[in-house]
Amino acid sequence: MVKILGGYQTDFARNWLKEGVSIVEAFKECVNGALESSHLNARDIETIHVGNAAAELFLSQGHLGALSIEADPSLRGLPSARHEAACASGSVAALAASAELEAGRYDVALVIGIEQMKTVDPQKCGEFLGTAAWYEKEAKGIEFPFPKLFGQLGVAYMDRFGLDHGYYSECQSYLSDLMFNNARLNKNAQARNWDISNMSDKLTARISPEITVKDCSQITDGAVAIIIASDKFTSQYAKTRGFDLESIPTILGWGHTTAPIALSDKLSESENDTYVLPHARRAITDAYRRAGIAGHSSIDSYEFHDCFTTTSYASIDLVGLTKPGDNHLAIEKGWIEKDGLLPLNPSGGLIGAGHPVGATGVRQLLDSYLQVSERAGPYQTQLKNKKVLAVNIGGSGTTTVATVIGTGKT
Amino acid sequence: MVKILGGYQTDFARNWLKEGVSIVEAFKECVNGALESSHLNARDIETIHVGNAAAELFLSQGHLGALSIEADPSLRGLPSARHEAACASGSVAALAASAELEAGRYDVALVIGIEQMKTVDPQKCGEFLGTAAWYEKEAKGIEFPFPKLFGQLGVAYMDRFGLDHGYYSECQSYLSDLMFNNARLNKNAQARNWDISNMSDKLTARISPEITVKDCSQITDGAVAIIIASDKFTSQYAKTRGFDLESIPTILGWGHTTAPIALSDKLSESENDTYVLPHARRAITDAYRRAGIAGHSSIDSYEFHDCFTTTSYASIDLVGLTKPGDNHLAIEKGWIEKDGLLPLNPSGGLIGAGHPVGATGVRQLLDSYLQVSERAGPYQTQLKNKKVLAVNIGGSGTTTVATVIGTGKT
Repeated sequence: MVKILGGYQTDFARNWLKEGVSIVEAFKECVNGALESSHLNARDIETIHVGNAAAELFLSQGHLGALSIEADPSLRGLPSARHEAACASGSVAALAASAELEAGRYDVALVIGIEQMKTVDPQKCGEFLGTAAWYEKEAKGIEFPFPKLFGQLGVAYMDRFGLDHGYYSECQSYLSDLMFNNARLNKNAQARNWDISNMSDKLTARISPEITVKDCSQITDGAVAIIIASDKFTSQYAKTRGFDLESIPTILGWGHTTAPIALSDKLSESENDTYVLPHARRAITDAYRRAGIAGHSSIDSYEFHDCFTTTSYASIDLVGLTKPGDNHLAIEKGWIEKDGLLPLNPSGGLIGAGHPVGATGVRQLLDSYLQVSERAGPYQTQLKNKKVLAVNIGGSGTTTVATVIGTGKT
Repeated sequence: MVKILGGYQTDFARNWLKEGVSIVEAFKECVNGALESSHLNARDIETIHVGNAAAELFLSQGHLGALSIEADPSLRGLPSARHEAACASGSVAALAASAELEAGRYDVALVIGIEQMKTVDPQKCGEFLGTAAWYEKEAKGIEFPFPKLFGQLGVAYMDRFGLDHGYYSECQSYLSDLMFNNARLNKNAQARNWDISNMSDKLTARISPEITVKDCSQITDGAVAIIIASDKFTSQYAKTRGFDLESIPTILGWGHTTAPIALSDKLSESENDTYVLPHARRAITDAYRRAGIAGHSSIDSYEFHDCFTTTSYASIDLVGLTKPGDNHLAIEKGWIEKDGLLPLNPSGGLIGAGHPVGATGVRQLLDSYLQVSERAGPYQTQLKNKKVLAVNIGGSGTTTVATVIGTGKT
């Protein structure tokens, strides 16, 4: 099975344009950091996979796989590619890399997730992100299409499970506050120093009937790199360096599904289903199955793609913590808090830690690595099963990639 | 080893915008065509990989992996991703798909290459394609950056190998004419019906000192899909349908390299190298090595990425047909003509058949499939070794993917 040897995240609170930092410098920072964290040299890397959603739009720069080799002269000549599945781009890059290792093509892969978004104003950013929906049907001419689409996900939960709007809003506010609180402990989180109590004017601004600014992840610049390796390489690597092989995190299982891209098609398809997002649910159960675990009771925490609070609300039944629709019970009982039954996003998630869209999937894998190897520092959660789940979503619940990462005997 | 079961190409002479054809309809056409060609049903597909360079720019549409499942209701739920390496996007999609099959994740993969480019005027198109170079250094504010960059590739050949500009221009003109002639036999080629003799005003227009319109592949709309499968699936598939297993084309070997993205960095790096593009050469020799063949003498024809005539000129030494710099000898001797020693682009290549950028790599694999299985019809070349080579290039010789495809005992 594929191992994670280390990784690095840039500080998601930064603004690269204001700092005068180029995307090449961001590549250098995350690649050098990941190499150092992994005790490896650039010459050890054999293949490079970059997750990025929309640098063509934000920077007029495509071909980011190739551009990434500028990070270190030793990377020249290596195979590279960029992978995209909207906000799940980081995860599809990781899946492509791990497939190459499992196929025996290479032994060591560099996986980078990167997005520079603060090059444009929020309206333009909303327009660019609209390309992740069905543009002609769902985004063209609409200001902030995604907050509106994810508002409709909230409506679907309220309608199907008979939830009162006021009560659902309170749940949303709780989820957002939880993320801001978790983020305070994460030195790379975008919102770690935000004084939420003095930001109410900004945060309560309404984008759709169900979504205020507080319900949204914010525009973020960020780059994350992880280094993954084959079993063969990792055995030798651990031996040479005197590391305990069982302490090195393993990708135990994954799931990957695609729902119809239009939210209206998703919702009409799932109308008689137990789950509002059955394809996302299946990606998660596929990951559990491949990891050889029964379900959420075998994981210690989960990193879930809370692009909006309506998504973190949905996460609760999708991972199996409650029955479909009973999500609010987990909120009432504090189950998803940092010291609860199944902590959600100890990192702060997308709302607290930030959401540089193409980087998020790789950031989730890095945070999962940090948790299961007890390297998460102030935001470390308690380990019982030594397994965590990461769920990365692209579009309005369209592409879902779920990954179970663990340490111990495999 | 991975097999190719069939595929389909849209007519590259079409203009989808003028026809009112949406990208979803283009997906449908190529997917249905590939299924029919492969004698398979959409329910047989297990994973989907889309190669696309820049739909965010041409169509304001990203997330094409997800959008592709609109081609058939049976594709709903399947894993999907979009892959990009500029004009080598189709090949990196195919590599990602074949890695998944080799890793044992799935048995049948749908690989689609697609690009709709005729939504903008040529200037805008040139600007969009400039994102495949190092935008800040090589493309920003420059009209038609790529013809100019590939003109410099010609200069490097002339300078290093002491070629006269006039003679080199004649070689370029020969290469272009050869592609237009080959294209006449290909019912899907963009230029098949062009009356070249009456287009001299247009074709002789100069873009850079070394490049006229005649030296360039043209703006193209196109979609291509192939279906690839594991050995296990293919054995059963051939048995059930009464097909000869040895007649089903196999991906025998591949190579994949990345040179520095800036052309000036490539050329200064290779100044003392035998080859002008050593990384492209290595992708090709890696493909030969993995296919277990000594070199070009074991292949029957080759599909090479002639985005410009300077690239097809370079192809001659890169594949090994002549010593580096002696490329003109192959031209003088007619070696790369349709009935020559080693035919170049019997399909018409990018200049004759068209270059919908993200689709080209998949189109080359499809044409290789057609050649080795003797299905190429009017543009079929003679088979001795039952092996062909496809070389797909992204950027100014930046990403190179080479693939050897063959039939017979493997």
